[in-house]
Amino acid sequence: MRAMTFSEYGEPSVLKLRDDMPEPAVGPDDLLVEVHAAALNPVDTKIRRGMYPPRDEAIIPGYDVSGVVLSLGANVPRNAFQVGDAIYASPCLIKQGAHAERVAVDWRTAAPKPESLDHVHAAAMPLVTLTSWESLYTRARVHRGETVLIHAGAGGTGHIALQLARVEGCRVITTASRPETIALCNELGADHVINHRETDFVEAVMQLTDGKGCEVVYDTVGGAVFDKSLDCVAVNGRMVTIVMNNSDQIVPKLFRKNATLHMEFMGVPTVVSINPSCQGETLRTAAELIDAGKLKPHVHKVVPLEDLAAAHEEQQSGKVIGKIVIKVK
Amino acid sequence: MRAMTFSEYGEPSVLKLRDDMPEPAVGPDDLLVEVHAAALNPVDTKIRRGMYPPRDEAIIPGYDVSGVVLSLGANVPRNAFQVGDAIYASPCLIKQGAHAERVAVDWRTAAPKPESLDHVHAAAMPLVTLTSWESLYTRARVHRGETVLIHAGAGGTGHIALQLARVEGCRVITTASRPETIALCNELGADHVINHRETDFVEAVMQLTDGKGCEVVYDTVGGAVFDKSLDCVAVNGRMVTIVMNNSDQIVPKLFRKNATLHMEFMGVPTVVSINPSCQGETLRTAAELIDAGKLKPHVHKVVPLEDLAAAHEEQQSGKVIGKIVIKVK
Repeated sequence: MRAMTFSEYGEPSVLKLRDDMPEPAVGPDDLLVEVHAAALNPVDTKIRRGMYPPRDEAIIPGYDVSGVVLSLGANVPRNAFQVGDAIYASPCLIKQGAHAERVAVDWRTAAPKPESLDHVHAAAMPLVTLTSWESLYTRARVHRGETVLIHAGAGGTGHIALQLARVEGCRVITTASRPETIALCNELGADHVINHRETDFVEAVMQLTDGKGCEVVYDTVGGAVFDKSLDCVAVNGRMVTIVMNNSDQIVPKLFRKNATLHMEFMGVPTVVSINPSCQGETLRTAAELIDAGKLKPHVHKVVPLEDLAAAHEEQQSGKVIGKIVIKVK
Repeated sequence: MRAMTFSEYGEPSVLKLRDDMPEPAVGPDDLLVEVHAAALNPVDTKIRRGMYPPRDEAIIPGYDVSGVVLSLGANVPRNAFQVGDAIYASPCLIKQGAHAERVAVDWRTAAPKPESLDHVHAAAMPLVTLTSWESLYTRARVHRGETVLIHAGAGGTGHIALQLARVEGCRVITTASRPETIALCNELGADHVINHRETDFVEAVMQLTDGKGCEVVYDTVGGAVFDKSLDCVAVNGRMVTIVMNNSDQIVPKLFRKNATLHMEFMGVPTVVSINPSCQGETLRTAAELIDAGKLKPHVHKVVPLEDLAAAHEEQQSGKVIGKIVIKVK
């Protein structure tokens, strides 16, 4: 089949379009899905750079899919999915992905595509929705009355997290720096947008919270932003990070605040096969929010499969607003 | 009044017995308590060494008390406490403590002394019970079916945490190294005691959990034990530490496990005055467990007030089993 793939780690130029890639291996728990659209995520660029365990095959990336069920494995319950169903899901990070004509996904991690979205917009949702949902709802358990700091509120996971926090009635402070990203944060309901190029975000957060800090801080950036974000956490607060770091400031800065650090890696249910159905359930509930008009993706750009390398370059620039979607069919 | 006190930081010899210390300042939310017994905790030795913010007075340490109410501040509700009531509590870490004839405690942080314990045994409970309770129940939310690793199961907080985890029906793995500490862990219901002088505790934990690690790890030691404990956390697990550290291994070791680190500092409700009544409520519920025979203190030694410096030396040795109690009256 046709797919974008790479056999060596490195720059985006390692990505090659091939017509002779093997069909996906469809296990007993899998749906074989005809890919209509797939999205791009920072994890694609990390896997391409060799930051994940090596594999004995040319790797097809792509960890978001919206498409149509072509066939079903033997374990898939008859009442769960049928051939022809439109579904959306986030394929397993250590198997072949969706930047291809077809992909296999565990039926327990998939959900019917939201009716109000076409495949392009549905493909923008799964990975960032699962990440934001698990971070803010499952882990940090945000609730009405709490102030939540969301970094990069116009980014892929940021723009979904911002909306999920608003759905729960939280007060949302977010960071952005360009007119168009600030505008998107405002449109999506942010209560305060801190221009982090013009202002120190710690000072701004402290001013906005009467010196108390935020009950919940969501770090989507890492590095120096992570360390500074520790100063934004309120006493008894929670911080969530979705980015690897080597900080030695976690306990010194959070201990006397009696605070918690959650590390969120959305790949666990698929990579380790622990409770994979939680992903399908989350995507079903998210579809209800989407169809009710309470949650929507922002699509930065739609590109054809053959332009994936350029899309990787753009993803790495940090300038993407919302999501880049790869239209496959 | 009579009290043990210090005016300079340093070795235990800075502690002096004085007869002329000012009576406690009794605020509108305070109970004035005649101290019958008080306990010693590692935090006493940390404050003595200058690890807490300096104060403009000779410091009286002592952050556990069991005693009798002598008078009540104007805000204390009539139905809460009466003169003559026997109470137990953990006094505020940044005010004068209980190694004295009298101490003031916020009524919201106090509870009636468990009926089944004398003052000496009741004084052994508050600080370690609050610490273990908040760590395992409020934060990590341990529950039946989970495996919990508790370091130093014969230590002050360890021996209470071990019992609290058993009350919830958890499987408890603990560490100890001397015959008498191993015996206490077994007596208190540990399922497995790892002799950490003879065995690598990470290897032992992995063997006992079929390579999965523990859902909850409770670090009471810090330093290298903290870093190694990160390897004992299961996927989706939670770790709690009650000790400051500068580890840079937290995110590298916990990120792909989708895990959580809770930092537990029991001083927050009194030091920052956030929800102080949670401490009184916890001590009331703990008293029910105590009177039902499900939770008990282990008293290592009872010493008179004038022997406090020697007790500090012993506390710092790491050889204390359970608690050292200071008998004041």
